[in-house]
Amino acid sequence: MKNQIISVMRILIKNILLDKEIVCVLIKDKKFEKIFKANAIDIQTNNTLILKEKEGKTDIYEYDEVLDGYNKALLPGFYNLHCHAAMNLLRGYAEDMPLFDWLQRIWQREAELKAEDIYNGTRLAIVEMIKSGTLFFADMYWHHKEVIRAVEEMGIRCDVGVSFMDRLGSKQIEENFDFIKQYNKDKHERISLSPAAHAIYTCSKDLYQKCYEISKECNTFLQTHLAETKQEYEDCKKNNDGYSPVEYLNNIGVLDKQSIVAHCVYFTEKDAEIFAKTNAVAVHNPCSNMKLASGVFPYSLLKKYNCNMALGTDGASSNNNLSMIEEMKMACLLGKVFSQRADSIRAKDVFDMATINGAKAYNLQAGAIEEGMLADCILVDLDNERMQPLYDVVYNLVYSADSSCIDTLICNGKILMKNHRVNNEEEIITIAKKYAKV
Amino acid sequence: MKNQIISVMRILIKNILLDKEIVCVLIKDKKFEKIFKANAIDIQTNNTLILKEKEGKTDIYEYDEVLDGYNKALLPGFYNLHCHAAMNLLRGYAEDMPLFDWLQRIWQREAELKAEDIYNGTRLAIVEMIKSGTLFFADMYWHHKEVIRAVEEMGIRCDVGVSFMDRLGSKQIEENFDFIKQYNKDKHERISLSPAAHAIYTCSKDLYQKCYEISKECNTFLQTHLAETKQEYEDCKKNNDGYSPVEYLNNIGVLDKQSIVAHCVYFTEKDAEIFAKTNAVAVHNPCSNMKLASGVFPYSLLKKYNCNMALGTDGASSNNNLSMIEEMKMACLLGKVFSQRADSIRAKDVFDMATINGAKAYNLQAGAIEEGMLADCILVDLDNERMQPLYDVVYNLVYSADSSCIDTLICNGKILMKNHRVNNEEEIITIAKKYAKV
Repeated sequence: MKNQIISVMRILIKNILLDKEIVCVLIKDKKFEKIFKANAIDIQTNNTLILKEKEGKTDIYEYDEVLDGYNKALLPGFYNLHCHAAMNLLRGYAEDMPLFDWLQRIWQREAELKAEDIYNGTRLAIVEMIKSGTLFFADMYWHHKEVIRAVEEMGIRCDVGVSFMDRLGSKQIEENFDFIKQYNKDKHERISLSPAAHAIYTCSKDLYQKCYEISKECNTFLQTHLAETKQEYEDCKKNNDGYSPVEYLNNIGVLDKQSIVAHCVYFTEKDAEIFAKTNAVAVHNPCSNMKLASGVFPYSLLKKYNCNMALGTDGASSNNNLSMIEEMKMACLLGKVFSQRADSIRAKDVFDMATINGAKAYNLQAGAIEEGMLADCILVDLDNERMQPLYDVVYNLVYSADSSCIDTLICNGKILMKNHRVNNEEEIITIAKKYAKV
Repeated sequence: MKNQIISVMRILIKNILLDKEIVCVLIKDKKFEKIFKANAIDIQTNNTLILKEKEGKTDIYEYDEVLDGYNKALLPGFYNLHCHAAMNLLRGYAEDMPLFDWLQRIWQREAELKAEDIYNGTRLAIVEMIKSGTLFFADMYWHHKEVIRAVEEMGIRCDVGVSFMDRLGSKQIEENFDFIKQYNKDKHERISLSPAAHAIYTCSKDLYQKCYEISKECNTFLQTHLAETKQEYEDCKKNNDGYSPVEYLNNIGVLDKQSIVAHCVYFTEKDAEIFAKTNAVAVHNPCSNMKLASGVFPYSLLKKYNCNMALGTDGASSNNNLSMIEEMKMACLLGKVFSQRADSIRAKDVFDMATINGAKAYNLQAGAIEEGMLADCILVDLDNERMQPLYDVVYNLVYSADSSCIDTLICNGKILMKNHRVNNEEEIITIAKKYAKV
């Protein structure tokens, strides 16, 4: 049985905490249609509610499904701006090794993965993401058709990054470009397909520029890894007349507001200026950068230049989960200890990085709970032991919560999880089990 | 209604993964009585099992309760070696402030807390700890009678630290010492009561030595905070003829293997040598040290000298949860990025810090699943999306898991959580809710 997304006309979320108020929310099709104070309802029957008369006008709303928001909080879901979803299959496969040994082991295992495996791994990743409140991910991997299949079925949003490296060879590269152009001729609900130039040490200048060109032609995005390790930074300067990775990409003309740039660890003031000027999106991946001992994202520097910043988990083999909740906490705690200032990075700013900043980077009218915005949201269980006492819901979510606090997830107006249960999760997890038998 | 701990004669855990094997485990009273391969059972009825005949001998075991271990893994639970449990009531109350402002705000709120509040806060903390797999905590706070009450009722283990500072005044100090001596005349199941000398900047030499003396007299422990901040380190050297905090405590003769020393951030080689020689226990609190921007625990240095190291969460106002799972991941990731080496700190060593090292520090015959050891353990749900694929259960637990993976917790042979539900949790959480109304 495939995942079934129940299509409803209107959803009523009843009596839920939004900011400091108890409200009711109507979702119609893909959007938040109406948000009103809970006490504004005059009459409510099984499938109709009438708002209190206002200026002689009576508003009647029919709805098809009700979610009880009692003791829950309504918040935007998370936008994971950097991921390799199918790498969930490699979770725990290679650990605590020097970087080079780790890479060798991961690459060897990756080479064995077939199309169907990518589908299975991506589905496992999507279950995990939904369960921890994530409703969008920027993916960068192989077998993009399988990623699209998994995303289509499971109802989440995704920018499917089609990976490019010189070593793919010109035939495969051309095929991939053709597919991107073909796919983007149609409008796709919830899915965009973008070229992902792997990195400056695997992609030539020409390949980067071609990826950029295609992304412009299709009005999609350019994903890449950049300035992740010291080695990469130093090699880049050596090979490119002293230019840093950021300067190099800027020089070859591939940075703009639709560039989604992962890691961004090794940055100079000048690099930060370039990001500010081009509006390129710097994606912070604290867990991965820590686990691989790559270094520390220069948050204060990028903040100083008012750069676009978002948050991502990276893949499970360098994290090893896909929880944006954990990623937010990690970003805050790492930023504080690294800067030696407890107030240098704030939970509310990191929460924005994980929500509205990510949505904005992908041109989505989403990431906040407002009438007219896309209905992307989570219902957080305030009866969970980690959410009390509740002085401030964002502080508790960033610093205290885990996936057990996320009760319900709605993406694009559809309920993808209710009572912390994702449709078909047992089947998807059961299939994932066989991968460890090696 | 108070927490009820169902007293059973024998528990059978059936068909559970232990290391790489499927086993059955019998728990009798407080201990693991028998661990045998699942296929060693000859006959099993509702409450009796007969092992396959071995050397003409038939072993028959009666049991009162069965736990189904199918798709679960059996692991030791966690020993949280540094906590201020009742501070759960201050979770999210003061965030992202400079350290001094934060302290002022926390102290002000703390001063308002009454005995009953400490009881309520400690119970909330215990619910949270059990739900994330913790079955022992070293507590350091006020109103120790209330902490004892909460711990007695809820079935967890605790070293209740009675806080000492000069400013308590001699009357209160004497009363506390008397209580410690009185309490320790009897043997208490699961609970020890120890003097906790707050820190070198709040306790005189005399007070430290008196605390140490009492701890020896009662054969209990000495808890303290040490070398947490740079300020403390520098002030100590200035005020004590150039001696570091560790040297100072060593000079005044209060360090030995029953000294449980939290934070230990500012350490020299000589300090590490002292810890190695005295066998004092260094408790790593990564979340708290990061969040308050205190600094980084010198893991590699202490490892080099083979010091006793354990793990703790600190209180919720500087963490903000009490999850040892998160603490393990934080310790690993911080250690790796700080040392710039991905293999400098290993998940399995940190798992030991969180389990057997903590148990050993407190002289508990626990922290590993072996016949004759105290029956302290967790059942981890392998059907959880974060536990698959399962190449290695410890890697998944440290790097991927969260509280949603912990299904069952057994402490001292009693089941404190089953199906991720703690007895009375709703009541305890409901009471905690009122604290945010300020």
